[in-house]
Amino acid sequence: MANKLLALSLSLCFLLFGGCLALREQPQQNECQLERLNALEPDNRVESEGGMIETWNPNNRQFRCAGVALSRATLKRNSLRRPFYSNAPQEIFIQQGNGYFGMVFPGCPETFEEPQESQQGEGRRFRDRHQKVNRFREGDIIAVPTGVVFWMYNDQETPVIAISLTDMGSSQNQLDQMPRRFYLSGNHEQEFLRYQKQQVKGREEQDNEGNNIFSGFKRDFLEDALNVNRHIVDRLQGKNEDEEKGAIVKVEGGLSIMSPPERQPRHHSGSRQEEDEERWQPRPHKSRREQEQEDDEKHGRPHHKGGSRWQDNGLEETICTARLHQNIGSSSSPDIYNPQAGRIKTITSLDLPVLNWIQLSAEHGSLHKNAMFVPHYNLNANSILYALKGRAWIQVVNCNGNTVFNGELEAGRALIVPQNFAVAAKSLSDRFTYVAFKTNDNAAIARLAGTSSTLSGMPVDVIAATFNMQRNEARQVKSNNPFKFLVPPRESERRAAA
Amino acid sequence: MANKLLALSLSLCFLLFGGCLALREQPQQNECQLERLNALEPDNRVESEGGMIETWNPNNRQFRCAGVALSRATLKRNSLRRPFYSNAPQEIFIQQGNGYFGMVFPGCPETFEEPQESQQGEGRRFRDRHQKVNRFREGDIIAVPTGVVFWMYNDQETPVIAISLTDMGSSQNQLDQMPRRFYLSGNHEQEFLRYQKQQVKGREEQDNEGNNIFSGFKRDFLEDALNVNRHIVDRLQGKNEDEEKGAIVKVEGGLSIMSPPERQPRHHSGSRQEEDEERWQPRPHKSRREQEQEDDEKHGRPHHKGGSRWQDNGLEETICTARLHQNIGSSSSPDIYNPQAGRIKTITSLDLPVLNWIQLSAEHGSLHKNAMFVPHYNLNANSILYALKGRAWIQVVNCNGNTVFNGELEAGRALIVPQNFAVAAKSLSDRFTYVAFKTNDNAAIARLAGTSSTLSGMPVDVIAATFNMQRNEARQVKSNNPFKFLVPPRESERRAAA
Amino acid sequence: MANKLLALSLSLCFLLFGGCLALREQPQQNECQLERLNALEPDNRVESEGGMIETWNPNNRQFRCAGVALSRATLKRNSLRRPFYSNAPQEIFIQQGNGYFGMVFPGCPETFEEPQESQQGEGRRFRDRHQKVNRFREGDIIAVPTGVVFWMYNDQETPVIAISLTDMGSSQNQLDQMPRRFYLSGNHEQEFLRYQKQQVKGREEQDNEGNNIFSGFKRDFLEDALNVNRHIVDRLQGKNEDEEKGAIVKVEGGLSIMSPPERQPRHHSGSRQEEDEERWQPRPHKSRREQEQEDDEKHGRPHHKGGSRWQDNGLEETICTARLHQNIGSSSSPDIYNPQAGRIKTITSLDLPVLNWIQLSAEHGSLHKNAMFVPHYNLNANSILYALKGRAWIQVVNCNGNTVFNGELEAGRALIVPQNFAVAAKSLSDRFTYVAFKTNDNAAIARLAGTSSTLSGMPVDVIAATFNMQRNEARQVKSNNPFKFLVPPRESERRAAA
Repeated sequence: MANKLLALSLSLCFLLFGGCLALREQPQQNECQLERLNALEPDNRVESEGGMIETWNPNNRQFRCAGVALSRATLKRNSLRRPFYSNAPQEIFIQQGNGYFGMVFPGCPETFEEPQESQQGEGRRFRDRHQKVNRFREGDIIAVPTGVVFWMYNDQETPVIAISLTDMGSSQNQLDQMPRRFYLSGNHEQEFLRYQKQQVKGREEQDNEGNNIFSGFKRDFLEDALNVNRHIVDRLQGKNEDEEKGAIVKVEGGLSIMSPPERQPRHHSGSRQEEDEERWQPRPHKSRREQEQEDDEKHGRPHHKGGSRWQDNGLEETICTARLHQNIGSSSSPDIYNPQAGRIKTITSLDLPVLNWIQLSAEHGSLHKNAMFVPHYNLNANSILYALKGRAWIQVVNCNGNTVFNGELEAGRALIVPQNFAVAAKSLSDRFTYVAFKTNDNAAIARLAGTSSTLSGMPVDVIAATFNMQRNEARQVKSNNPFKFLVPPRESERRAAA
Repeated sequence: MANKLLALSLSLCFLLFGGCLALREQPQQNECQLERLNALEPDNRVESEGGMIETWNPNNRQFRCAGVALSRATLKRNSLRRPFYSNAPQEIFIQQGNGYFGMVFPGCPETFEEPQESQQGEGRRFRDRHQKVNRFREGDIIAVPTGVVFWMYNDQETPVIAISLTDMGSSQNQLDQMPRRFYLSGNHEQEFLRYQKQQVKGREEQDNEGNNIFSGFKRDFLEDALNVNRHIVDRLQGKNEDEEKGAIVKVEGGLSIMSPPERQPRHHSGSRQEEDEERWQPRPHKSRREQEQEDDEKHGRPHHKGGSRWQDNGLEETICTARLHQNIGSSSSPDIYNPQAGRIKTITSLDLPVLNWIQLSAEHGSLHKNAMFVPHYNLNANSILYALKGRAWIQVVNCNGNTVFNGELEAGRALIVPQNFAVAAKSLSDRFTYVAFKTNDNAAIARLAGTSSTLSGMPVDVIAATFNMQRNEARQVKSNNPFKFLVPPRESERRAAA
Repeated sequence: MANKLLALSLSLCFLLFGGCLALREQPQQNECQLERLNALEPDNRVESEGGMIETWNPNNRQFRCAGVALSRATLKRNSLRRPFYSNAPQEIFIQQGNGYFGMVFPGCPETFEEPQESQQGEGRRFRDRHQKVNRFREGDIIAVPTGVVFWMYNDQETPVIAISLTDMGSSQNQLDQMPRRFYLSGNHEQEFLRYQKQQVKGREEQDNEGNNIFSGFKRDFLEDALNVNRHIVDRLQGKNEDEEKGAIVKVEGGLSIMSPPERQPRHHSGSRQEEDEERWQPRPHKSRREQEQEDDEKHGRPHHKGGSRWQDNGLEETICTARLHQNIGSSSSPDIYNPQAGRIKTITSLDLPVLNWIQLSAEHGSLHKNAMFVPHYNLNANSILYALKGRAWIQVVNCNGNTVFNGELEAGRALIVPQNFAVAAKSLSDRFTYVAFKTNDNAAIARLAGTSSTLSGMPVDVIAATFNMQRNEARQVKSNNPFKFLVPPRESERRAAA
C-alpha cells in the first residue's frame, strides 16, 4: 500500500539516517520567492555528429531555487555519448530507446574479462578487460554519482532520449552552483559552459586549445604518464579534431561490447534489427544472489533490502557491483494503480540503494484523460516535473495562497515545483505521462484531499472550526473522495471521452 | 551528572552519527561579524479573533546570522491555532497554559477512532477517526518537523502563550532563508509575509484572493478532487471570510476532542472548570511500552533509548507514534540543581529522539537573585535565549575580546548568542527564568570557570604560562570555584536579599 | 593495495554513512570559476615572543572556493602556543619538531592525575589533574574539532613548524566563512582578524581592551565566577600585558608536563638534550586495547575498526580518549611505494576515526627527481597542496580543458586544487615532499593514466571510439603504463640524474 510505503520510508529513514536530512545547499537569499512559475523548454541545443544535447538555462531563477540543472541528450543509432564526469550527482531517465552504459568507479576491479581463447575476427589478440557494462532500456532511472566517469551507447534503430537532472545543490558538490561536465575526450565545449560565460561576461576569456581534461596538460607530461607516443597524445587531447564532432560520436560499424554468454554472442553491426529484450538471460554460472535479483526485476517485485542482504557481502560486492539503474517506466509494476485513473511508480533509496548516495529519487506517472492527481505538496524535496507524453493542466500554489502556475504542461517541457508548494494536475490527453525528479532520496508527499489525506488526519471538529463550516460539511471534506492519489474522471466526462 | 551527560551525548553522537554534524546552512558572508547584539522584542503583532501572533524580524542581522525566526502566539480560551505547515522545522516552548495539539504525518494511520455506538448529542452518526491528538502543558517543548501540518487548541481559562523557533538554516529547508507558513485555511496573511515583502519591495505585488493553499486552486479542481459542492469549496478557500478572523479562531462552545477513556468522557463546553491534570491516565488496554513511557514521564525519569527499544518495533510504532513533546518546565526534574543558585533542565535528542530529526535542542533554566551562570560558550550551536520571567544581567564576548552585549535581558525579550561567543549571566530578580533554543540536537557547552571547566582540563603549568601568572594563582583559577554551572550569590548578597 | 583501500573506503562509507556525504557549505555563486590558480605564500606574519604565526589571506578567491583557511605557526624552544578554539575544525600537520599538545573536551574527566605523594621541588603541595596530554612528532596529523580548546608546546631545540588547515566550509561551523580564533588569554589580535577588518572596512571599529574571551567580561563577573581576586582577573584579561607577547609565549625554565612513568621522570629544563623518541613506552598497567593500538602504531599497521572494537567500550573510552593524532610522515609505513619513484601515505577516517568527526583527511607524499604523480582528480574533495621540501612542476586543468596552473610549486607555498579539476606533478628536486589536506574524511582520487585507471575501466572499443583512434592505440592507452600512481623517471633521466 502506498500509505505503508510512505510510512515505511519515513520510519526507516528516521531510524537509520537520523531523519532523512536532505543535506543540500540552500539557494541564495530570495531565490525562492517565486510569484510566477513557467513551463520551460530547453533554450540551447548543441548538435553532435551522433545526436544532440539540449540544455535548460541553469541561471533561470526557478532552477536556481531548486539548485538543479536539466539537460536532454538524443543519441542516434550506433552513437556513443563520450565519457565525462560531473561535479554533482546525476539522475538520468531514459525517455526512449535501449542501449549500454558504463561507469568507472576508481579502485574497483575490472570484472568483465575477455576469454583466453581470443576471437579471430579483426585480428585481435589483446585480451580486454574493463568494469561492468550495463544494458538500459526505456523507462530506466540511472544514478551517476559525483565525479564518476559515465558513458552511454545506442546500439538500436530507435534514437535514445535521456533526460538528465544534475543536482548542483548536493553536498557532494564542493564547487559552486554551476554545472560542470569534465569530458575525457573531444574538442567541443561542455554543454553548460555557455551559461557560465554569460554569468562572468565581463571577464576576459581564455582561448581553449582542447576543451577536454587531457588537452590542458602539456604533451610530454602525457607522453610520460601514459607511456605512449606523440600521435596518441594528440588523439587524447582532441588535437585537430573538428569541433562539430561534439559530445556524441558516430561509431562506424558499431561498438563491440562484451555481453553475458546467454545472449547470442555478436558484434552489433549497423543492420541488426530491434533487439529482443527477452534475450537478456542470466548466466548459468551467475551467483544465486544475482539470479534472484534479476528474477525479481523481471517480475516487478520490489527489493527492500536496506542493507540486510549486504551485511554478508565482501567488499567487491558492495559499491563495485551496486545496482545503478532500475526501471520505473510503463512496463514496470506500478505502486499506485487505478484502471480508470492511471498509475504511479516511485523509486527511492529503498528500491535502489545507490540513490541514498546521491540523495535523489524519482516518480513516473501516467494519467488518463480528465483524471486528476489530487492537490498535494512535497514534504521534503523539490520536484522537477518533466512531461513525457500528452499534456496536463497543472496548478501550483505558494505559501501566500497565490496561484504561481495555472496552465498546460506539454510533452518536452519542465516545471519546477518547489518544496511545500501545493500542486494538482488534471490530464488533458488520453495518456499524460511524466517523470518527476525529486531532490531527496526518500521524497514524501502530503495529500490535501482524499482518503488518508492531511484533512482526514484531523478531527472532524478541528476541520469544522478551521474552515468555519458545519460538522456535516467537515465530514464530507474528510470522506467524500474515496480515492487516495488519482481521481478518475467523473462519469459524465468518461462517457464524453468514450 | 551533567558532566556525564555531556560526555554521553558527545560520545554517542560521535559513535552513531559520525560526530554530530549540525547539517545546517551557513549564513552569508559577514553576517556573523557582530560587534553589537541587542535584546530584541517582537516588532510586529497580528491580532486574530482568538488571540494574536507576534513576530521578530527575521531580516535582523542577528537572526540572519543564527539562521532562525522567532514568533510568539497567544491563544485565548476555546481558541484554535489553525492548521499550517512550514518550510523548516519548529521547536515550540509552551510558556503558559494547557491544551491540545495535533500533527498530521502523511502515510500514518488514523489511530484515534470513535466507538461504534455513536453518542446521541448533536445528532452525529458519522464515526470520526483521525491521527493522535496530544495534550500539552506549561513548560512543554514540542517538535514540529518540516512540512508536517500542526494545529493547537486552548481549552482552558488561562491564555496559552507559545514561543516558536523556526530553524530556517536546517537542511530540511530546501527553499531560501525566508520563513514561510502554509495555512490550510483562512483569509489572512501568513505572519512572516510582511518581511518577505520588505525584502523584495521593488517587485510588483500580486493580489491574493485567499491566502491559504486551497485558495490558489481553481474551484472546479477542488470540487473534483474533494468531491464536494461549491459552497464547501468556498469555505475551504476562505472566500468571503473576514481577514480579521486571522490565524487563531474562536470556537463557539468549545471543541470536542476525543480523549482516552479514563478521562471523564465529556465534550468541552465553554463553562467547564480548569482541568485537572491528574485525569490523564493511561488506557488499560494500552501497550506495555506506552504504559512504561507515560509512567516514566510522570516520574521524571529520562529515556535514553537511542534506538535500542525501537529495534523490535513494527513500523507503526516508529514515526507514527513517536513522542513529539516533553516537559522541561519548572515542574520537571532538573539536570543541574543547586538550591541556593537555581536549576537547569536540558532536552536533547537523547531525551526526545524526534529532536534528532529536526536537529534542535533546548534548555530551560531558573536563577535565584544574584546567582550566576558561569562564563561559557556553545560548542556546536547557536543559542537563542528568551527570557520568560524576571531579568538578568548578561554579558557576551566575541572572538576579538569585545563585549558585544552587556546589559539586561528582561522577560519577553530575546538575545541571540552565536556559536562560540562567550556568555555569562547574573540574575537581577528573585527568579530569572529563561528558555534557550539551540541549533543542534546535541548542543554542548564548554564552561570557562568552575570545577571541570576548560581551565581545569589544562595542566596547572600551562595555565600559569598561558596567563603569565604564578603556579599558585593558576591553582586558584583551576580550583577556587567549587561550582560547575551555577554559582550561588555571595554570602553578603544572600543576606541582603533575605 | 591502494586499489583495495580506495574500494574499501568507498564501500564502507557507502554502507555506513549513506555515501560519504561531505556535508560542507558550498562557495558562493561563481567563486569556483577559476581560470588561473596561483601558488600562494603567506601574506602576513605576526611575531610573538616565542615564535610567529603566518597566515594566507582567506579572502583570496581560491581559498574562498575551497572554503578553507591556512596558517603556519613556528614555535621556538620552550614556547607555548596559548590555548584557543576555533569556529571550525582544524587539521594540523607537523612539518618539523616534536612537543606536547593538549585539547580540552567539555564534560570529559581529568584523567592525568599527580600522585598523592607530591614531589618536593618548587614547593608544590597542590595535586594537579587535567585531561590527557599528547606528544606529537614530525609528520603527525592532529585533528582539532570545532570549539575544542587546543594548545601546543615545544620542549625541544628544533623549532616546531605546524601547518594548520581550518575548514570554514564545515557544517560544524554555524557562523559565516570568516576564520575566528577565540584566545583564552593574552592581549594580541587573533591572527585572522585583520582580514575580517579588511572585509568590513566601512564599519566603525571598536577599541578592544583585551582581545581574549575573558577580557570582554566585566571584572566583578569574573571575580564572582572564578572566586579569585582582582589581580588574578587582570591576568586572565591580559591587562597591562604587552601586545608584542603574542599568541606564542616563552616559558622560562620550560614547562613541567606530567608524562607516563615509563619515560624517565623529569622536568624539562632548558638544557636537556634532544629527546629520544624511543623513551615513549606504554605503561605496564595500560589496557590491552591501548597496548595493541600503540603497538600497531609503532609497526605501522593500519586500524580498521570502524566502530567494531568500540562497541564494548564504556563512555569514557570513546571520545574522551579518542586518538587525536597519527603519523603520516616519511618515517611511517607508506600506502603507495615505488623505490624508484617515491611514496605516498594517506590518512582517512578509517585510520583515525576522529577524522570522521571533522570530515577532513590528508595525504603525505614524496617524489624522486623526475618522477611523476599521474594525472588524476579528486573525486569528492578539494585538495590543499602544501610543498614541504624541494619543488615540483604542477599542471592543473579545469572543466573547460584550460590549463589553470602550469608552474613550479616550491617549499613553503600552497596550491589549491578544486574538486574534479585534473592535476599532475613531476618532481624537480631529488626529493619533493608535500602534504595535501583534503576536505572529505574519505577523500578518493580517480587516476587518468596507468593500470587500474579510469581509462582501463572502459572497454577498449569505447576508448577507441571516444578518442577517435585505432583499437591498437586504445590498447596502448589502456596498458602501456604499468604504474598506478607514481611513474619513475625514464631510464635516460635516471642516468642523467645519477
